[in-house]
Amino acid sequence: MRCYDLYMKVNDKAYRSIWLNEDGWSVDIIDQTRLPHEFIIKTLQNLEDAAEAIAVMRVRGAPLIGATAAYGVALALRQNPTATHLVETCETLLATRPTAVNLRWALAKAQRLLSGLPREQRVEKAYVMAADICNEDVAINQAIGRHGLDVIRRLWQKKPDDSGAFQILTHCNAGWLATVDWGTALAVIYKAHNEGIPLHVWVDETRPRNQGAALTAWELAAHGVPHDVVVDNVGGHLMQHAQVDMCITGTDRTARNGDVCNKIGTYLKALAAKDNGVPFYVALPGPTIDWQTKDGLNEIPIEIRDSTEVTHVAGKNTAGEVDRVQITPDGVSACNFAFDVTPARLVTGLITERGICEASEAGLLDLYPERKGQTA
Amino acid sequence: MRCYDLYMKVNDKAYRSIWLNEDGWSVDIIDQTRLPHEFIIKTLQNLEDAAEAIAVMRVRGAPLIGATAAYGVALALRQNPTATHLVETCETLLATRPTAVNLRWALAKAQRLLSGLPREQRVEKAYVMAADICNEDVAINQAIGRHGLDVIRRLWQKKPDDSGAFQILTHCNAGWLATVDWGTALAVIYKAHNEGIPLHVWVDETRPRNQGAALTAWELAAHGVPHDVVVDNVGGHLMQHAQVDMCITGTDRTARNGDVCNKIGTYLKALAAKDNGVPFYVALPGPTIDWQTKDGLNEIPIEIRDSTEVTHVAGKNTAGEVDRVQITPDGVSACNFAFDVTPARLVTGLITERGICEASEAGLLDLYPERKGQTA
Repeated sequence: MRCYDLYMKVNDKAYRSIWLNEDGWSVDIIDQTRLPHEFIIKTLQNLEDAAEAIAVMRVRGAPLIGATAAYGVALALRQNPTATHLVETCETLLATRPTAVNLRWALAKAQRLLSGLPREQRVEKAYVMAADICNEDVAINQAIGRHGLDVIRRLWQKKPDDSGAFQILTHCNAGWLATVDWGTALAVIYKAHNEGIPLHVWVDETRPRNQGAALTAWELAAHGVPHDVVVDNVGGHLMQHAQVDMCITGTDRTARNGDVCNKIGTYLKALAAKDNGVPFYVALPGPTIDWQTKDGLNEIPIEIRDSTEVTHVAGKNTAGEVDRVQITPDGVSACNFAFDVTPARLVTGLITERGICEASEAGLLDLYPERKGQTA
Repeated sequence: MRCYDLYMKVNDKAYRSIWLNEDGWSVDIIDQTRLPHEFIIKTLQNLEDAAEAIAVMRVRGAPLIGATAAYGVALALRQNPTATHLVETCETLLATRPTAVNLRWALAKAQRLLSGLPREQRVEKAYVMAADICNEDVAINQAIGRHGLDVIRRLWQKKPDDSGAFQILTHCNAGWLATVDWGTALAVIYKAHNEGIPLHVWVDETRPRNQGAALTAWELAAHGVPHDVVVDNVGGHLMQHAQVDMCITGTDRTARNGDVCNKIGTYLKALAAKDNGVPFYVALPGPTIDWQTKDGLNEIPIEIRDSTEVTHVAGKNTAGEVDRVQITPDGVSACNFAFDVTPARLVTGLITERGICEASEAGLLDLYPERKGQTA
């Protein structure tokens, strides 16, 4: 399955974020709940393992959730290849996370490709489909990186000579850990860095789960991209003082009208970008577009996660061990919305594998004309 | 000195946030770096203690910083009452925190009142001045609370009957812990709660130091005000979905033009409030107005604090002890801006001890006509 180049490295060894184990059937992932303090590979052996890994966010990021779900189907069919079990499997996996549309997309693809097959062909075909989804994701992300590089190159050329590195702000982790390889928003940053454009990245820590502080900072450090971690509150101040040349994020679901659902807090950064004339781009693979949702702001379901993600923070304690601390008073009530929706009017452009478009139905249909016949 | 009622209680005992020790000369504070997990009173005995308490934020909040500085002057003069030492003391204290203007205000007042006095009268007069500043702060905050209550009452009456509690979002801690008693923004909330208006408060956790999660939640719980802690990223989403009826914050310095400097991230909430038609009020005591600064956004110095406040989070660990955890990869670079400036155009109104005004020079001068003659 490793037919594409493996780009991202950990201690000089190349990894994807998900891959088939050497045994030829179980599935290995990097346990992202343990990063950046521990690099632990976890092996998924059945449907339950896959569903748990998605639900507790050992894997996260819309594209990687889709890929994991595809492998989850393969593992489930290996346990029981009946059509009934295929349906049940898809229901189980779909229930793990409500917002990322890639989950629904991968499972719909599985149903479509596998349900009509003879039972004895389903397992093999499911593995092929999962590998195809992974390889397609890598190809998509490389294309996103190339198109995004054009944006950065253009903005970089307009930046005054004496104004230092090109400053990018990103929220959450839209890197190779959120996808199979390369990443979406970070693919753009990696391509620009490799091109020799001097970059500096402001990494939003991204409370409550700190994917920026833990994962994006870890990725950028491994790849040698200069960066500073900032709390999520800082971006507005930076933009007011011309410290940001461009914002770029990923998305968990982009609606047909160009509204972008992404990690909670993205909307606030988009408002600040608009208020200060900073370009705000969103990088997204085609499978992240939800063609059935006409109005992102009012229709996309927003996951509410456990309040302990707000009240407790995990990290490495003074003894060097991974622990978590409670930051709130005992017995406090907390509320944990995982995503928000940035209205299309605040988005400068969408960077897809097919090129860049306006955040609007017309813009998206220009790039994906085959969707024109379909109504939401 | 306890000539005003003591409002706020801890375990049924009334406290101010700063008071004269029973010995009649040393000064007691609540060590706010230990809350909400430990309630520890610390005694300041000299200038160094006072300066350290301000610098490491055992006391914080613009009004309380001013009060602590005033007592710091008294403690310093007790050590050495010369005019030279008075000047040096003010310089030392002024250097502890650059943004809150109350520090400068209290120290200017000390210089003005004390420098011309005979040496032997300075200590006593300094203690009287500090007590006056404290008592004045309490009176100011009660007046702010009353004026703010009018705002809430008016908005509450306009809210549809079946739409539940009046929803307030606040950022950081502008409660009694940030002042001598009552608080500024929270004084308004306490007054409305006492009035019987059903409230629910969204408490921004307020990274990096979590004053919302640690202090505001602790205050509101002690006072029985319903609330939920949310990460700083959530406010925009809440406002998009009509879950916030009003935002109210404090301020560390308000410029002559109405620009409001407050805890980092306030600007982002003000943008979201504007985008969603939510009233955004700032509660401020007169001494927090910087009449010398004409343009808040471009002139107010923004404190940059130690990056470990970003990379590490303090709280109660799984063993029940106060510890801190590192959330970022080893060796990461982080940047820690402590405040931002919300442009006056985003502020619905300023709630002062003299009433409510537009966030503008004209609005402020209407309430403080004695400043008309003074130019910035």
